[in-house]
Amino acid sequence: MTEIKVVRKVLDANDTVAAQNRKLFAEKGLFVINVMSSPGSGKTAVLERTLVEIGGEIPSAVIVGDICTTNDADRLARTGAPVVQINTDEFGGDCHLAAHVVAEAVSRLDLSGARLLVVENVGNLVCPAEFDIGEDIRCVVLSVTEGEDKPLKYPLMFRVCDVALLNKIDLIPHLDFDREAIIANIRAIDQGMPIFEISARTAEGFAPWLEWLKEKVKSKS
Amino acid sequence: MTEIKVVRKVLDANDTVAAQNRKLFAEKGLFVINVMSSPGSGKTAVLERTLVEIGGEIPSAVIVGDICTTNDADRLARTGAPVVQINTDEFGGDCHLAAHVVAEAVSRLDLSGARLLVVENVGNLVCPAEFDIGEDIRCVVLSVTEGEDKPLKYPLMFRVCDVALLNKIDLIPHLDFDREAIIANIRAIDQGMPIFEISARTAEGFAPWLEWLKEKVKSKS
Repeated sequence: MTEIKVVRKVLDANDTVAAQNRKLFAEKGLFVINVMSSPGSGKTAVLERTLVEIGGEIPSAVIVGDICTTNDADRLARTGAPVVQINTDEFGGDCHLAAHVVAEAVSRLDLSGARLLVVENVGNLVCPAEFDIGEDIRCVVLSVTEGEDKPLKYPLMFRVCDVALLNKIDLIPHLDFDREAIIANIRAIDQGMPIFEISARTAEGFAPWLEWLKEKVKSKS
Repeated sequence: MTEIKVVRKVLDANDTVAAQNRKLFAEKGLFVINVMSSPGSGKTAVLERTLVEIGGEIPSAVIVGDICTTNDADRLARTGAPVVQINTDEFGGDCHLAAHVVAEAVSRLDLSGARLLVVENVGNLVCPAEFDIGEDIRCVVLSVTEGEDKPLKYPLMFRVCDVALLNKIDLIPHLDFDREAIIANIRAIDQGMPIFEISARTAEGFAPWLEWLKEKVKSKS
């Protein structure tokens, strides 16, 4: 019981900072997307291609959360967008990004002219779903290699997200993969969520996802 | 700071229960393996094949941790081993198995004659690594589709584990996969950890893993 009460207090404190972040982002006219997934779903590859494709039209900046290493930030910096890496091992090896950690990263980021802020969360299909960071939309990336039952086993993530990217579809011919089952399982948690089937490796399916994202960003400003 | 102190207390309380579990397992002559991984690494498929292959020689029982669903328990029950499913959403949607949750599951499990207890943890490459459940060994399953850098990005998991299973090697021909890099990255965290390269789908590489596990179980009794 004590544990649950303490968790409640931590989440309430987080919500307060998330609301401050949201206000700041609104003042700056910045659209913020929080990208979450299991480790190895291909989040970084999806974001690399996304930033390269839309960067000319929509100036973007990136915050990358990892427990350790700057691998992902290094990859995303090559897209030309300003990037700040958060290593959560400075915060006790946190399994998620909290709002205050994002606030600190934002203060270190050159946002002049940026209209889109992409936050790549720590690879974890559980805990990041519980922490509001002040974003406009939440995106879950799911690799087709992870199996069809993940939406049912990790329902909170799919419940809090506004869009799902089903990645690595180039591997489907080599898997025992049931496309209808995974779509039905996402729909069982969230009836209306847009689902884009993509391959960050081959670019297949990227055009509709990019159009959707661009519309979202433009609708804020 | 308060948050960190509270986490410390939770972990200390967990260690106390884990020590009780360990004592109970020793009294029963039960060897316990805690299997951890990202969601979708193929943990359940690895365990299905492992239990079918060694079940005749080594009577086994299983505890399965998931936030929701009994999918994995249903699959593992078909191997003939007694199975108890823990759904952590009864415990606030916990992202890991804690020692007291395992203790409760053990009390509901028919362990008569069992020599091996397999605990399939919640799919999460971060938090389960922090919670001792009283196990003899910890095993991390990593899918080749997850990318080579996971040991560096999630070092605690690889530091606390005693053996690594590199799964889904049947997919390697279809990936941009650097085998030497992933082995080197595991070795950078743990020099001596045995690494078995396997495919739960095709059974490739299973024989040495099963031999290793059987030796471990026998060495305890």
